[in-house]
Amino acid sequence: MRSSRRSNGYAVTRADIEAASARLAGVAVRTPLLESPLLNQQLGFRLLVKAEPLQLTGSFKFRGAYNAIAQFDSAARKAGVIAYSSGNHAQGVAAAASLLGVPATIVMPADAPRIKIDGTRAWGAKIVPYDRASEDREAIGLGIARDTGARLVRPYDEPQVIAGQATIGLEIVGQAGDHGVRPAAVVIPCGGGGLASGIAFALSDAWPDTHVFTAEPEGFDDTARSLAAGRRLEALPGGSSICDALLAPMPGELTFPILKGLGVRGLTVSEHSVRRAMGEAFRHLKLVVEPGGAAALAALLDGTPGPEGAPVLCICSGGNVDPVLYADILRDSEAQ
Amino acid sequence: MRSSRRSNGYAVTRADIEAASARLAGVAVRTPLLESPLLNQQLGFRLLVKAEPLQLTGSFKFRGAYNAIAQFDSAARKAGVIAYSSGNHAQGVAAAASLLGVPATIVMPADAPRIKIDGTRAWGAKIVPYDRASEDREAIGLGIARDTGARLVRPYDEPQVIAGQATIGLEIVGQAGDHGVRPAAVVIPCGGGGLASGIAFALSDAWPDTHVFTAEPEGFDDTARSLAAGRRLEALPGGSSICDALLAPMPGELTFPILKGLGVRGLTVSEHSVRRAMGEAFRHLKLVVEPGGAAALAALLDGTPGPEGAPVLCICSGGNVDPVLYADILRDSEAQ
Repeated sequence: MRSSRRSNGYAVTRADIEAASARLAGVAVRTPLLESPLLNQQLGFRLLVKAEPLQLTGSFKFRGAYNAIAQFDSAARKAGVIAYSSGNHAQGVAAAASLLGVPATIVMPADAPRIKIDGTRAWGAKIVPYDRASEDREAIGLGIARDTGARLVRPYDEPQVIAGQATIGLEIVGQAGDHGVRPAAVVIPCGGGGLASGIAFALSDAWPDTHVFTAEPEGFDDTARSLAAGRRLEALPGGSSICDALLAPMPGELTFPILKGLGVRGLTVSEHSVRRAMGEAFRHLKLVVEPGGAAALAALLDGTPGPEGAPVLCICSGGNVDPVLYADILRDSEAQ
Repeated sequence: MRSSRRSNGYAVTRADIEAASARLAGVAVRTPLLESPLLNQQLGFRLLVKAEPLQLTGSFKFRGAYNAIAQFDSAARKAGVIAYSSGNHAQGVAAAASLLGVPATIVMPADAPRIKIDGTRAWGAKIVPYDRASEDREAIGLGIARDTGARLVRPYDEPQVIAGQATIGLEIVGQAGDHGVRPAAVVIPCGGGGLASGIAFALSDAWPDTHVFTAEPEGFDDTARSLAAGRRLEALPGGSSICDALLAPMPGELTFPILKGLGVRGLTVSEHSVRRAMGEAFRHLKLVVEPGGAAALAALLDGTPGPEGAPVLCICSGGNVDPVLYADILRDSEAQ
C-alpha cells in the first residue's frame, strides 16, 4: 500500500480532509462538544468531550466509510462494498452503503456485541460471520471481493477512511474556539489508528503546540509500545479487553507513520478506569459510551497528560454497548 | 398572580422569550436535535428529538432558572434565591445561582433521586429536606423567603421561568429547518406545564399548523384531564409514577391558560412505555433519559398523534436518573 502515500509522505493531505468534510456536510452529524462544570471540578481542569456516540450509527466510523464509498464510480457502486469489522466499521459501512444505494457485505466476528450485529443488519447489509480465533477476516473479505467484484473498504488502512475520520479534527478546532478554549492536550481512543492519525494530522496546522495522545486498553497497547519503540509492534499474545472496538493486532501501515511523524504519544488504561469513565459519562454528560469509546476519558480520570490545570479535549468515539453489559457497569460504578 | 399576565392575556410575550434567548446565549447549551434512521424506520415516521439531557445540569430547567435569577437586581442577588423542587429545578436554580454569584437554598423532598440531590449540592446550594407526604414545600419555601429575604423562584408558575423554557421553541424552529422538516406534531413532557406552555407559545407564530401535545404519566394526567375539561383539575389522589419530574399536583395558574388558549391536547403514557422509551433512547440515540424526560418519546412509541407518516418532534427533557434504576430498566427492556 506504499502507493497510497501522498507527496507529504502520509496517506492523507489537507485537501483530502477538506474534501471529506464537504462530502459529509449535511449527511454526517456535526456532533456536539460537551462540557460538564461538575466533571471539570472533579478533574481539576476544563475538559471538552467530542460526542461521537451521537454520530449516525453510534460511532465515528460512519465518517470514513461514507467518505470512501461516496468516491466509488458507478461500476464499483453496482458491484458493491465489502468490509470486515468487529462492529462499528460494519455499521458505518452498512449505513453509508445504504444511503448511497450500494450493496454491502460485512464479515463480522460471531462474538461481536449483539447491538452491533443488529445495527449492521438493520441497515440492510449481508452479514458473513467468522470465528475470531481460527479464521482470518482479511482473507475472507479478499476472497469475497475476488469472487463478487465488490470493493473492500478497510477499517483504518485506507486513505479515504483516514480522511473521513479526520473531519472530527476540523470540527473540534471550530467548536473549541466557540468555547473559547485551545486545549493543551487531545486524547483519542485507538485501535488501528485511523481516528487518531486522522485527527492528529488535521490538528497539526491549527494547534501545533497541542499534544496528541492515543488511549488504548491494557493488553492491546500495541500503539503505545510501537510509538515508544519507533516501529510497528504487534499486541502481545493472550491479551483480552472489554474494549471490543480497540482490538486491532498492530498499528496500521498507513496510520502509524502519521502518528509517529507528528510526535503522538501513547497512554494505556485499565479496565477499571474504562468502566469508571462510562459511569462518569452517564452521570455528568448523559452520554452512552461503549468501552472502547471511553478509553480516552478513562485516561483522563487517571490524570491529565497535559500541564496541570490546562484544558484538555477528548474524543468519546462510540456508544454501541449491549444494554446488559452497560447495566452491569453502572451498578458496579455505583457500588464504589 | 393574575398581575403576571401580559397584554396578550398570557404570562409571557414574544419579546420576553427573545430576551431570554439573548440572556442564555453562550451560557446554556444549544442542545442538538437528534435523529435515528433506524428509529424512524421502526416508528414509521421521521422523529426529531430535542436532547435536553445535554443541557447544563442535565435538564431544561437550567434555562428558566437562569433567565429568572439573571434579572435579580443587586440587592436581590445579595439576599439570595430559594426554590422548592423534586430535583431538576433544584439543580437548575443551584447552577444558575452559582454562575451568577447568588446564594441558593433549595427545599427538596427527602426521597428525591440521589443523583439530583448530589447534583444540587455539588453546585454549592444549601439543601433543606422535607417530607413529601406530610409537609407543604411551598409553605416551607415562603417561610424561609420571609425569614431571610431570599426571593422564591417557582418551578413553573413564574413568567421568567416560562420564558426561559420557551427558548427551546425558538431553537427547534431553526434546527428543524436545518433538517428540512416542519413537524406535524410536537410532543412535550408535562408536570406543571412550564416547558409545554413556553414551547407551545414560542411555536404558535412560526408553526401555526403544528399540533402541540403534552405527555404525562398515568396517575398524574391532570393536564390531559384539565385540557379535556377546559378548567384546571387536580391529579387524582393516590397516584404514583416512576416519572419523579412530572408529579405536579395540578396545571399551573399561569401555564394552563396558555396550553388551553393555544389548543394544546394531552396524551397519557403507561410506565411500561416510559421504560421502553428509555431503552430506545439508549439504543438508538445514545442519550441517557430519565423517566419523566422520556414521557413524550413514550407517547410516540404508542403511536403518532399526527397524520400517519408525517414528521414529529419530541422533547427529551432531562437525564437525571439514578444509575441503579437505569440499569434495571435497561435489563428489563432487553429481556422483552
